[in-house]
Amino acid sequence: MQSVADELEVKAGAARKAARTLANVNSDVKDRALRNIADGLRANQPEILEANARDISAGHDNGLAESFLDRLLLNPERLEAIAADVRSVAALPDPVGEVLDMRTMPNGLKIGKRRVPLGVIGVIYESRPNVTIDISALCLKSGNAVVLRGGSDAINSNTALAAVVKRAIAEAGLPGDAVQVMESTDRDLVGRMLKARGLIDLLIPRGGQDLIRRVAEEATMPAITGGVGVCHTYVDKAADTEMAISIVDNAKVSRPSVCNALDTVIVHSAIAPSFLPALARKWAEAGVQMRCDTRALSIVGAVRGVSAVAATPEDWDTEYLSLTAGVKVVDSLEEAMEHIQEHGSGHSEAIVSEDYTAAMRFMDEVDAAAVFINASTRFNDGGEFGLGAEVAISTNKMHARGPMGLKELTSYKWTVMGTGQVRS
Amino acid sequence: MQSVADELEVKAGAARKAARTLANVNSDVKDRALRNIADGLRANQPEILEANARDISAGHDNGLAESFLDRLLLNPERLEAIAADVRSVAALPDPVGEVLDMRTMPNGLKIGKRRVPLGVIGVIYESRPNVTIDISALCLKSGNAVVLRGGSDAINSNTALAAVVKRAIAEAGLPGDAVQVMESTDRDLVGRMLKARGLIDLLIPRGGQDLIRRVAEEATMPAITGGVGVCHTYVDKAADTEMAISIVDNAKVSRPSVCNALDTVIVHSAIAPSFLPALARKWAEAGVQMRCDTRALSIVGAVRGVSAVAATPEDWDTEYLSLTAGVKVVDSLEEAMEHIQEHGSGHSEAIVSEDYTAAMRFMDEVDAAAVFINASTRFNDGGEFGLGAEVAISTNKMHARGPMGLKELTSYKWTVMGTGQVRS
Repeated sequence: MQSVADELEVKAGAARKAARTLANVNSDVKDRALRNIADGLRANQPEILEANARDISAGHDNGLAESFLDRLLLNPERLEAIAADVRSVAALPDPVGEVLDMRTMPNGLKIGKRRVPLGVIGVIYESRPNVTIDISALCLKSGNAVVLRGGSDAINSNTALAAVVKRAIAEAGLPGDAVQVMESTDRDLVGRMLKARGLIDLLIPRGGQDLIRRVAEEATMPAITGGVGVCHTYVDKAADTEMAISIVDNAKVSRPSVCNALDTVIVHSAIAPSFLPALARKWAEAGVQMRCDTRALSIVGAVRGVSAVAATPEDWDTEYLSLTAGVKVVDSLEEAMEHIQEHGSGHSEAIVSEDYTAAMRFMDEVDAAAVFINASTRFNDGGEFGLGAEVAISTNKMHARGPMGLKELTSYKWTVMGTGQVRS
Repeated sequence: MQSVADELEVKAGAARKAARTLANVNSDVKDRALRNIADGLRANQPEILEANARDISAGHDNGLAESFLDRLLLNPERLEAIAADVRSVAALPDPVGEVLDMRTMPNGLKIGKRRVPLGVIGVIYESRPNVTIDISALCLKSGNAVVLRGGSDAINSNTALAAVVKRAIAEAGLPGDAVQVMESTDRDLVGRMLKARGLIDLLIPRGGQDLIRRVAEEATMPAITGGVGVCHTYVDKAADTEMAISIVDNAKVSRPSVCNALDTVIVHSAIAPSFLPALARKWAEAGVQMRCDTRALSIVGAVRGVSAVAATPEDWDTEYLSLTAGVKVVDSLEEAMEHIQEHGSGHSEAIVSEDYTAAMRFMDEVDAAAVFINASTRFNDGGEFGLGAEVAISTNKMHARGPMGLKELTSYKWTVMGTGQVRS
């Protein structure tokens, strides 16, 4: 095996070369390549599942948690679902080549902006092998090459999937080098990827807060970070109580392990005495632990079957990813927004209110990737927002914010067509 | 004087607080603030010119070059021109609050993207004091606060200008803290600004290649770099010779000191014998030195009065910013594009050709912020592209490429208005 540095340089270099070709390939060729990948996942199911079984078995030996092994696991149904996602991406419109703001200037120059791919996307992710295929499909469709660094626990699965992808796209006439899976599981590789300016144009880290912090500090190329959501729903004094319970419960319980799930519910003191006991009864059934400030605890503590404890200061900054929620009582909209500004991660923030001015102020003043009035934060998602698919949910403000779909994997170039114009 | 770190923390903190207010200020208030700045530049002309005279005098004592002192110099005409620019920015449409792609989803959710300011912009620049006003105006109009670090040689001018700005915007009811000029001229300050993630949301370095490289390596926040242009014009075999001479000459001679000026002219061998002597005669008059490859030198060497020397390998990667140009002869469009890909900085690239396929291939395949057919690269400019004004010309692909105007100083947030929707 070559060294880590060599592998990165060789693979990213091959990816860059492939990216140049890919940038000017027509949509029908790219879509055929994607359909070939979907077909290949079915045709090569035995090999893929066998490779995945080796990862699962090694994971058992290494004492990995069941939840981790579940994310790592592939089976025929999951492979079919992944293939279906790839077909969906093939069906989306191609962002590349779209022309924006074309116009003829007074001097006759025809000036516009044309969408172009970014080049080589680097992705650092963890154990879910479906990411290998999802990201490859989105990058190919948007004309980008990709260098993938999955978790070492998924290395056999990812290598098998990458082989399918490379064959499938080569059959469509695309350079197989457009998708590169790093085989080295050396931990040093992440550090090297962060320094690979010139080889990687955009880095997308999909992982926990430690990885994201490291990327911000060390990466020498642009990076889009996201995935960390400390999300609030504020139940205003003018909320419809029933609607508020439905929205808050949905935001927490429908899928607690994801980034757009509720972490803290903030309740106006005027509605807390009616709202909180009803919520606590519902959450007692659902098994949600409530981490309460003093006032909230005094209201819900007596609810039968409830799991309620006093919140620690750290709780307000915690992304739980589980059936746990902070509960805080405030005396005003301003106090709620102040708390959100201090503790939110700029991901998804909601207000439930029938008060027009309160709802509009919340939307104007809260600074987050997505701000909701009378709806669940769980809707912050590329599919739900109509993008068809997403590579990440960005909590950056630069380039892309919120769900990143195909368009967000592109840049543009200014195109200027003249008839001999010179500048005076 | 407080320490460098203290000054940065205090000023950037005050800027962030001001940015929160500024984000939701109506356009008419921001425009009034800008007009106040323009008025203030006139009313305070004596104080500003006196401060500038101190910088100029110190610059003389420090042995600064005349060209540097010229960039540093303010006079009544220049101040009027700066004020006029501020009035132009006031007259531009406000990008903040623009709603993009609003639609009603099948479940009734109304989802759109609303343009919002980025927050606090950090700008590192050199000696031109007009930048202090230009950037302040663009940031204020786009709802951003700004932390400015100008060159130490312009410190008196910048401090005087900042005082005018702060008073002017406070009179309009905006927080004066929205514009901060760092007073410390400690060289350590740049390093500290690069590490000020959380204090500065976007960094715009306006300076040479060393600063830009340092930003890429050290900055912990997003940065937009630009300003370095190694620009080519390719004269195809099917070029109209007269048009080619006009365009190439304009690209080099009209303003050699700027980033969109021509650095290397690439000429197809079939047209070189007629084109190059004519260009050489023109450039002999204009005083342009031609740094030629062997074939070009053999053609232009005999032209009377020409200044032609053999090019060194470094010449092809040089941004001259002066009356110097590389001259290279190629045998094909492909060879020209290969050279541009290897040596260009992704800024401005042009082809002169009457051949449809060659022109279209050049536009499709050359990867740069702006690609021109039959026009001078000198048009790569915010004003010429219809943006009204620009903070920089980005050679990045992320967030903004080419001229950055007001829109490019914004992000967006997703706004979702519901009637109680939850996710299934």
